[in-house]
Amino acid sequence: MSLIDDAVVHDLYSAMGPGVEISGGSAANTAAGIASFGGRAAFIGKVAADQLGEVFAHDLRAAGVSYDVAPAPDGSPATARCLVLVTDDAQRTLNTYLGVSADIGPEDVDEHLVRSAAVVYCEGYLWDQPGAKAAITRAMQIAADAGRQVAFTLSDPFCVERHREEFLHLVEHSVDILFANEIEICALYGTDNFDEAAAAVAGHVSLACLTRSEQGSVVVSGDGTRVAVPAAAVDQVVDTTGAGDLFAAGYLFGHTRGLPVAECATLGSLAAAEVISHVGARPAVALADLVAAG
Amino acid sequence: MSLIDDAVVHDLYSAMGPGVEISGGSAANTAAGIASFGGRAAFIGKVAADQLGEVFAHDLRAAGVSYDVAPAPDGSPATARCLVLVTDDAQRTLNTYLGVSADIGPEDVDEHLVRSAAVVYCEGYLWDQPGAKAAITRAMQIAADAGRQVAFTLSDPFCVERHREEFLHLVEHSVDILFANEIEICALYGTDNFDEAAAAVAGHVSLACLTRSEQGSVVVSGDGTRVAVPAAAVDQVVDTTGAGDLFAAGYLFGHTRGLPVAECATLGSLAAAEVISHVGARPAVALADLVAAG
Repeated sequence: MSLIDDAVVHDLYSAMGPGVEISGGSAANTAAGIASFGGRAAFIGKVAADQLGEVFAHDLRAAGVSYDVAPAPDGSPATARCLVLVTDDAQRTLNTYLGVSADIGPEDVDEHLVRSAAVVYCEGYLWDQPGAKAAITRAMQIAADAGRQVAFTLSDPFCVERHREEFLHLVEHSVDILFANEIEICALYGTDNFDEAAAAVAGHVSLACLTRSEQGSVVVSGDGTRVAVPAAAVDQVVDTTGAGDLFAAGYLFGHTRGLPVAECATLGSLAAAEVISHVGARPAVALADLVAAG
Repeated sequence: MSLIDDAVVHDLYSAMGPGVEISGGSAANTAAGIASFGGRAAFIGKVAADQLGEVFAHDLRAAGVSYDVAPAPDGSPATARCLVLVTDDAQRTLNTYLGVSADIGPEDVDEHLVRSAAVVYCEGYLWDQPGAKAAITRAMQIAADAGRQVAFTLSDPFCVERHREEFLHLVEHSVDILFANEIEICALYGTDNFDEAAAAVAGHVSLACLTRSEQGSVVVSGDGTRVAVPAAAVDQVVDTTGAGDLFAAGYLFGHTRGLPVAECATLGSLAAAEVISHVGARPAVALADLVAAG
């Protein structure tokens, strides 16, 4: 994932082939996934009063997610967008223009909403932005003060590289449930060895949900216990965008219902398998129906 | 297809589930299909200077279609959109807000462009709009004066019902190549019998390309000769939107290369089969590659 500015987003878009516009955003995808399982989720994030912002809000609410942050006033930057190039091997290059999403601040965090949630799930992507960082910090503090759980995703290996010390501090002091893929968790602990990284994180969080693409996932508990769950079968991998977001959705849906770790991870695998079977980073079918179908 | 106004488009959108935004528009889909075969196409139609308009222009140009109509000035209606509801049987309900597309007028028709084209292809959808009707009439006249061919699609049975007398007059006097599906051609000639309609149209145009969904197509020549071509095989019909538009693309691509009628219709079937195998009304793969793959 690369961050790009307004000029580059226009140049790159001009050079791209015909596209399809689909709502996304890492934590928003997770919220949509939780709602698709039948769970309750609310999202905090900022859009502009433009068409992409309208579409984003529509798609999120239509998915069943509560979303009440007012659009930014006229004159603000445009709604964020990510230009995604997907190759035939289903891998993708993400070029993200943060736009007005970077303008979120602690004042946008609804204290009542955060206190009412069993888990507050924050993404690492916006840690570059002082306002967003303050918003995340405030949300985590409210949750902690209310006795709620804090979940965090490392989001991206480049994010980890840029903010390694701060992410380590967060993980050690503020995070209960950590989500990361193999590359990200290795980057955090400065190792090439997954087992070493998994051992290191065990002492820092209650649960570390570590995804390994087609090798499935490993959930490490605070006492060092590891539960490995295989990836769910996929007929054809079309677009891996959103795999981690949807794994988190399935895991958190199960977690908030008190299911055992292995069942939570299995729900995560199910949701990830669904989302990589088509273009786009949100479920194309109701995940609750997939669960019901067994 | 229903036409809806600004208020209804907002109400209906609010009631819809999460969506996917994909460029469309009947004749624009046809132009994109021709370019996908490797042909040269230009499009005349109007968008606003808004995000949907920008996306429309991008997708069309990125598909290889020449598109030079300036966006409408600020204060104009928004870019047209069609809210498409697709059911599990791949059928769809089209709710069209014409927006600024209805503001096209004869001044938007580039005479040089039309004179340079082997075929000018016009859609019936905008016949309700006086400006658009004048634009179509002018384009047809320029083409006729330049010795070019005029193609026309009846577009929709409701369009035919609304403008039956005028469409009959057009077909008898101004159209060389007519595109219609079975329901539309029967509506035009006020019959329930396809053979009767096919016999009636033979005397009016040089070529009538009549599509019959899974029964394939029948091309009727001016002398009454009929060539029937089967539909191409489709693994799974997902969304029939664009089937007629892409049949026209394949047919016109072959026609402008001087291919025999049966080969033109086979290219039409190929393109239609591709577009109904996925969501959206434009090709998801290069049609030239499908042809090359045999």
